[in-house]
Amino acid sequence: MPSYTPPTKDMQFILHDVLKVSTTDTPGYAELDRDFTAAVLEEAGKISSEVLAPLNVVGDTEGCKLENGVVRTPTGFKAAFDQVREGGWTALDLPEEFGGQNMPYILGTAVGEMFSAANQAFTMYQGLTHGAASAILAHGSEDQKATYLPKMASCDWTGTMNLTEPHCGTDLGLMRTKAEPQGDGSYKITGQKIFISSGEHDMADNIIHLVLAKIPGGPEGIKGVSLFIVPKFIVKEDGSLGERNGVACGKIEEKMGIHGNSTCVMNYDEATGYLLGEEHKGMRAMFTMMNEARIGVGMQGLAQADVAYQNALEYAKDRLQGRDVTGVKNPDGPADPLIVHPDIRRALLDQKSFVEGARAFLLWGSQMIDQSHRGNDAAAEGMVSLLTPIIKGFLTDEGFDMTILAQQVYGGHGYIEEWGMSQFARDARIAMIYEGANGVQALDLVGRKLAQDGGKHVMAFFDMVKGFIKENEDHPALKQDFLDPLKESSKHLQQAGMFFMQNGMKNPNAALAGSYDFMHLFGHVCLGLMWAQMAKAAHEAIEAGEGDTAFYKTKIATGRFYMKRRLPATGMHLARIESGAEPVMELEAEAF
Amino acid sequence: MPSYTPPTKDMQFILHDVLKVSTTDTPGYAELDRDFTAAVLEEAGKISSEVLAPLNVVGDTEGCKLENGVVRTPTGFKAAFDQVREGGWTALDLPEEFGGQNMPYILGTAVGEMFSAANQAFTMYQGLTHGAASAILAHGSEDQKATYLPKMASCDWTGTMNLTEPHCGTDLGLMRTKAEPQGDGSYKITGQKIFISSGEHDMADNIIHLVLAKIPGGPEGIKGVSLFIVPKFIVKEDGSLGERNGVACGKIEEKMGIHGNSTCVMNYDEATGYLLGEEHKGMRAMFTMMNEARIGVGMQGLAQADVAYQNALEYAKDRLQGRDVTGVKNPDGPADPLIVHPDIRRALLDQKSFVEGARAFLLWGSQMIDQSHRGNDAAAEGMVSLLTPIIKGFLTDEGFDMTILAQQVYGGHGYIEEWGMSQFARDARIAMIYEGANGVQALDLVGRKLAQDGGKHVMAFFDMVKGFIKENEDHPALKQDFLDPLKESSKHLQQAGMFFMQNGMKNPNAALAGSYDFMHLFGHVCLGLMWAQMAKAAHEAIEAGEGDTAFYKTKIATGRFYMKRRLPATGMHLARIESGAEPVMELEAEAF
Repeated sequence: MPSYTPPTKDMQFILHDVLKVSTTDTPGYAELDRDFTAAVLEEAGKISSEVLAPLNVVGDTEGCKLENGVVRTPTGFKAAFDQVREGGWTALDLPEEFGGQNMPYILGTAVGEMFSAANQAFTMYQGLTHGAASAILAHGSEDQKATYLPKMASCDWTGTMNLTEPHCGTDLGLMRTKAEPQGDGSYKITGQKIFISSGEHDMADNIIHLVLAKIPGGPEGIKGVSLFIVPKFIVKEDGSLGERNGVACGKIEEKMGIHGNSTCVMNYDEATGYLLGEEHKGMRAMFTMMNEARIGVGMQGLAQADVAYQNALEYAKDRLQGRDVTGVKNPDGPADPLIVHPDIRRALLDQKSFVEGARAFLLWGSQMIDQSHRGNDAAAEGMVSLLTPIIKGFLTDEGFDMTILAQQVYGGHGYIEEWGMSQFARDARIAMIYEGANGVQALDLVGRKLAQDGGKHVMAFFDMVKGFIKENEDHPALKQDFLDPLKESSKHLQQAGMFFMQNGMKNPNAALAGSYDFMHLFGHVCLGLMWAQMAKAAHEAIEAGEGDTAFYKTKIATGRFYMKRRLPATGMHLARIESGAEPVMELEAEAF
Repeated sequence: MPSYTPPTKDMQFILHDVLKVSTTDTPGYAELDRDFTAAVLEEAGKISSEVLAPLNVVGDTEGCKLENGVVRTPTGFKAAFDQVREGGWTALDLPEEFGGQNMPYILGTAVGEMFSAANQAFTMYQGLTHGAASAILAHGSEDQKATYLPKMASCDWTGTMNLTEPHCGTDLGLMRTKAEPQGDGSYKITGQKIFISSGEHDMADNIIHLVLAKIPGGPEGIKGVSLFIVPKFIVKEDGSLGERNGVACGKIEEKMGIHGNSTCVMNYDEATGYLLGEEHKGMRAMFTMMNEARIGVGMQGLAQADVAYQNALEYAKDRLQGRDVTGVKNPDGPADPLIVHPDIRRALLDQKSFVEGARAFLLWGSQMIDQSHRGNDAAAEGMVSLLTPIIKGFLTDEGFDMTILAQQVYGGHGYIEEWGMSQFARDARIAMIYEGANGVQALDLVGRKLAQDGGKHVMAFFDMVKGFIKENEDHPALKQDFLDPLKESSKHLQQAGMFFMQNGMKNPNAALAGSYDFMHLFGHVCLGLMWAQMAKAAHEAIEAGEGDTAFYKTKIATGRFYMKRRLPATGMHLARIESGAEPVMELEAEAF
């Protein structure tokens, strides 16, 4: 059975050596000193490796079962969920008045990565609840907040997001679910929603569905969509649970992975719903959830890559097969461990350099969310809004690829379910699809985010990269290994942006045909920047003679690998982008 | 449920317009005229789409079951296998004297691609039998050939390959299975083999296991390995079946995919075996099977990519979602089909340009096998030996990636099993692993094949590319779109080879650290060459005013896409290669 070791040390490095969180002026960050974050991460790590990880294979093997309208989660899930609840892990960053712990979002991200790595399907029950609670917090009335948030903060009640219908996912303007006003402030919701994660299960007393629907007579298309709170059990005035609402799970889907999470068809038959936010402004409210959810999904990509990598590394150290071509390394054994072979190391370093770079990227993004929410920092809000589709799209694409590489290290043992490597790949696969398929992320990045606020945020990104390079160019150990390749790749990104500007005005397809490559190009530059910053921090620590020198040296070597071996992808993406619309658009649909 | 349309027209184009098979002097090719190959491909296509494809999901869902030592294949498999047998499809290219049809290997490859695309797990029963029969044909005594081949040609008896043991796969020198000579020419085989595809099942009267084992007292390691024929039922003098041999299936593995094929743990307990070929020369005999099997596995990569692509294309044409940004394309519908969107087209063209290029590459490789086997052409033999690891490694890596892209086109519907797209990805995944994991292919390419016969074959490859460019550089439609990018990418390949020569002598790791990238770089150059040749053939056909002009124009446009959008990968691979050993080797194993 695979194991999971919480990456506490690496997280501490990023939080304190790189981001230096406790010295920034973001409200709430002053208390994030090394000891405090260490204590939280240690505890979260313990739950992850001891409680959640052992249930990962169980969830995959047993799956969820629908019997007489009731969904049974896999053996052990309910007890573990209680333990997570009791430990206070379900609302780290929600306000104290609603039962949360009011911690910064960045700490929630670090904890979330561990939970997700240990058991993605399980952690989704909690993650979706958090997303739904955030939407109620941002758009709900005082009454709604008081009614739902405390129970959702504790996960006594869980939450869901209901967007997709059989005939529409990305294009929600086609939605058919109706919400008929009842004159008493409530609505009757009727329609069918599909792919509803955690839609029905046996781990909570109530399930609070957030449902997109159209109020008859409203505007056509996406502008006529409103968001509703539809509880499984109606909540009475006194907060106790009343009658069953007109919502039921019609089916659970057979899927490639995340079997431990129930993916439901939800049928709404005149279910009572309450408007959340304004009429016809449902998409805006939903996007509060979506943006947070997108960062959370990017985190899943990284998390699955990390746990898969950890196991591949152990296997590569244990499994004896073949001899080092430059000389026997394990003379007392029948063969050398796999890790002596250059191509196995190449595969491991592709994974390691991705995982650690992605972790820094994700925590940096989370820091900007705190700056934006807690510090009202518009620049940070703009930057994280620009980077969100990259965090989601790039980290899940790459994260999935890394699970495949990790599986490959096992040879045939990676393909059979016994070793657990197949599950990492199958679970990671969904992250490229849900919360907006990665093609939609690329479209969001190129079609919306680049030009947002007059292109201010992308310019700020370039300025930041330039500033960092300039500031450090006298540092000989950084210059050649980190700053030069970063400059080169960032030039590729600028050239790509320039190409879009010059050609996209005349023909939007000239930009859109390169959107996916742009997302990846941008992702590599972000990870290159993270590695340059991490290398700087590691050098500083070594010079200061602090801490574990071997750790810092490994960090620098891993970074060098990324700059030399992964960053050259930017040139390829640029070439693809600069080939423009024609190769993609010239064929008629019938000619394919 | 997904469907499969046999790519008969595309195969005819490659066989006749590009390779011009019937006009070459390879023995047996004269009869391969358009009508003949069309007739064979039509019939094979019919079986594929009507008999095998409908059983693909059944095989995945039901899987194989081991009950009281008997493996039951999924519903319908036995009847379909009988139909394939009766149609004479199981030994197209085996000699007539043993019940085959003596057709060229190239035709077997084309038919095999269809069968594999329609149902990979099913087709493996037949494919492994063919591989085992080839080994007996090449290394068996006259008596062995007469005893086993006719029944194997008809698949009344099926075959297996037994290499892997629990503690060794790639490094077969560690093998523990023993073969004790009995003094009567037979041996008693004892040991455990794992991952034995088609190891036990209910579709054949007998199963002929080819088993690697060590004769006690022989040389140490891989040089002391011999190959044995171990039938499930002993074959009596008169050819009838005698007693059950001491071999049994102990377990079937739960796997990520190919559930319709039984992957068995095989326990040999003093089973009677007969030496195939010479004592201690088992690896040589096994490699006869392995090389053929590797090309067959490369074919599987292409085949799964094609069937996945076909379904993604249909979905992209049918599914209405969003509007074309340059103007509504389907004004009468609620939205435009997915295929109007540039990023969907990008994904479809990545797939289409791979599938068609890979098909040409595979058929060209098969033609060289015919030249080598039937025409005793040493140059062809050397070239296909060089290209075999690329066919296996590159086509299966890319083939898998394409199934992931195809799945992605479906959004959430791609992740649930109902639409069948997950199965294509899960089934395709194994091809990167079995018959030598792709890392081993890269090692074989760089560590062995490049320098084989003094590097003659790789030089011949470069000469061929140069020759083709030179011959056609006055063709204006080819020059810029095809020849220039081919020249550029081939230069990258030469530079990479040069880097290995200059650095690999001093430090083999400088070459091995780049082996995987070299395999991909080489694969792209091969597909670039294929596309240049296909573009030339298409232009010739258009100029001659023959056939379906729209088909040829599409071919050229698809090729242009490959050259512009896929071939730039070669520069990235070169950069990775030229970073040498250090980034990969510098960390100690403990530092990872």
